[in-house]
Amino acid sequence: MTMTIRHLIGVDWGTSSLRVARIDERGEAIEERSSPRGTLTVGPGEFPAVLHDACGDWLAQERAMALVSGMAGSRQGWIEAAYVPCPAGFDEVASRLAWVEPGRIGIVPGLSSHHDGVPDVLRGEETQVFGALALLQLSELTAVLPGTHSKWVRVAAGRIDGFATFMTGEVYALLRHQSILARTMETQGDELLDEEAFCAGITRAMKAGSLLKGAFSARTLSLFDLLPARSGASYLSGLVIGEELRSQQFALPNAEVVVIAGTELARRYELALRFAGMRPRCVGSQATWRGLSAIARQLKDTP
Amino acid sequence: MTMTIRHLIGVDWGTSSLRVARIDERGEAIEERSSPRGTLTVGPGEFPAVLHDACGDWLAQERAMALVSGMAGSRQGWIEAAYVPCPAGFDEVASRLAWVEPGRIGIVPGLSSHHDGVPDVLRGEETQVFGALALLQLSELTAVLPGTHSKWVRVAAGRIDGFATFMTGEVYALLRHQSILARTMETQGDELLDEEAFCAGITRAMKAGSLLKGAFSARTLSLFDLLPARSGASYLSGLVIGEELRSQQFALPNAEVVVIAGTELARRYELALRFAGMRPRCVGSQATWRGLSAIARQLKDTP
Repeated sequence: MTMTIRHLIGVDWGTSSLRVARIDERGEAIEERSSPRGTLTVGPGEFPAVLHDACGDWLAQERAMALVSGMAGSRQGWIEAAYVPCPAGFDEVASRLAWVEPGRIGIVPGLSSHHDGVPDVLRGEETQVFGALALLQLSELTAVLPGTHSKWVRVAAGRIDGFATFMTGEVYALLRHQSILARTMETQGDELLDEEAFCAGITRAMKAGSLLKGAFSARTLSLFDLLPARSGASYLSGLVIGEELRSQQFALPNAEVVVIAGTELARRYELALRFAGMRPRCVGSQATWRGLSAIARQLKDTP
Repeated sequence: MTMTIRHLIGVDWGTSSLRVARIDERGEAIEERSSPRGTLTVGPGEFPAVLHDACGDWLAQERAMALVSGMAGSRQGWIEAAYVPCPAGFDEVASRLAWVEPGRIGIVPGLSSHHDGVPDVLRGEETQVFGALALLQLSELTAVLPGTHSKWVRVAAGRIDGFATFMTGEVYALLRHQSILARTMETQGDELLDEEAFCAGITRAMKAGSLLKGAFSARTLSLFDLLPARSGASYLSGLVIGEELRSQQFALPNAEVVVIAGTELARRYELALRFAGMRPRCVGSQATWRGLSAIARQLKDTP
């Protein structure tokens, strides 16, 4: 179908938050709103009302269209959007939108890849990567999207041709708060990064060969008074992010890696990538709006 | 001091349980008792009373001596016993006992090692390894002691000359019960090992290069209906134990590895080691009594 979109509304609907934006012709946000109504807080059937609460006024405008990316398209979300197999570019993704209301509310599909018979999936990150391609005017890149489940993504000739998931953020949180390691760490102040301890953690991760082994050093260094309690969380953060860098197979030393993340995580990955001899280049949360805009443009161009 | 011990009482006092035994001249248990009063349940000053409850009758015998191994010797235990630096044999360990009552109640010290400036420690496992040496009549071995914090230990010329800790059991429990992976696994039945899923987990661990990456496959395989909910915990167990095997640097393929563990964990490690091409040889919980007996003999022989 050929689209005549006057007002594009971007919806970034993850498990823990909902962000909406009015997006202009250039793919930039004119106005943004956010709410804590992530998909995990939304019951079956409640999605239309929650979106209406967030941006019903925008949706009421003539020829408005909302494009939704993120976990709203999962089996536990609003309606299930497909996993498009890699390699996939704008066109494959745009042609597989799951329409809640045709031409008015569409959900961006996720991507799947297979390696050694093992599937991997992402949902939401495809849009951010497309946005980064548009923002940086590239058709080829290696990107990392840090988070609860960190994604490494490779793009060639404008299409995502491979990716891998690392449970970095989730494992960090479990070790930080629920494991024996928590006992020798201060309970607060994690937002204050101790860069020296963080880099010591990265170094240790590179040498230990496995986080199962490396992680115990957070305890023993503390037992031997070699790691102050206030630096424990930074050291552990370095251990876990360092483990991700050690085992990713997407970027060699000296490669440029696009980091798509909010400020705090971007800072840590920038530091870690430089420390590992790579060249980080950061793109912020506007990547989602830019990506949704590029998908919308693809819809218009499709006869 | 030269000891005249008539009755040796072995005390295996870990964080979650207390086991006591009357040990004969050959290092075998004549009588065993156990209680849930692990060190974590024992407040400061309560250790004498708890031990008295467990085996006061034995301690009251003439020339009885209790040797205690495990976390009772830690900073949060009864009294702190040293960490003896590796390499360490029976003699170093016996000469560094921490005596609660000289000649009557002694606590076996732990061991420490340093690698790349990072310390590692164990406490209790030294006694089990000494016991395995005595039981198997060896002076050289590579052992694994699976558990919350799994230990790999190398013995040469009768002395422990290196070891490493892997947080295998703890990380398994966190991923199994507290992570996103729990959502696609049956909540019960973990004691029923699905050997095929377990070995698939080991294979995946060997290829993934990091548990951070490999672990996510437990979710995606399930999303794609390739891993039944009832097999999820066995697969994860294989992933985590496989990661330990992949990254340990103590045993090469075809090497003999002594597994010192209770029945259920021994079975899993035996299977995993065979699957990885190594030769497991199992020793059970009697290793502790045999080790304490060997340390007691060392005391007698020391002028």
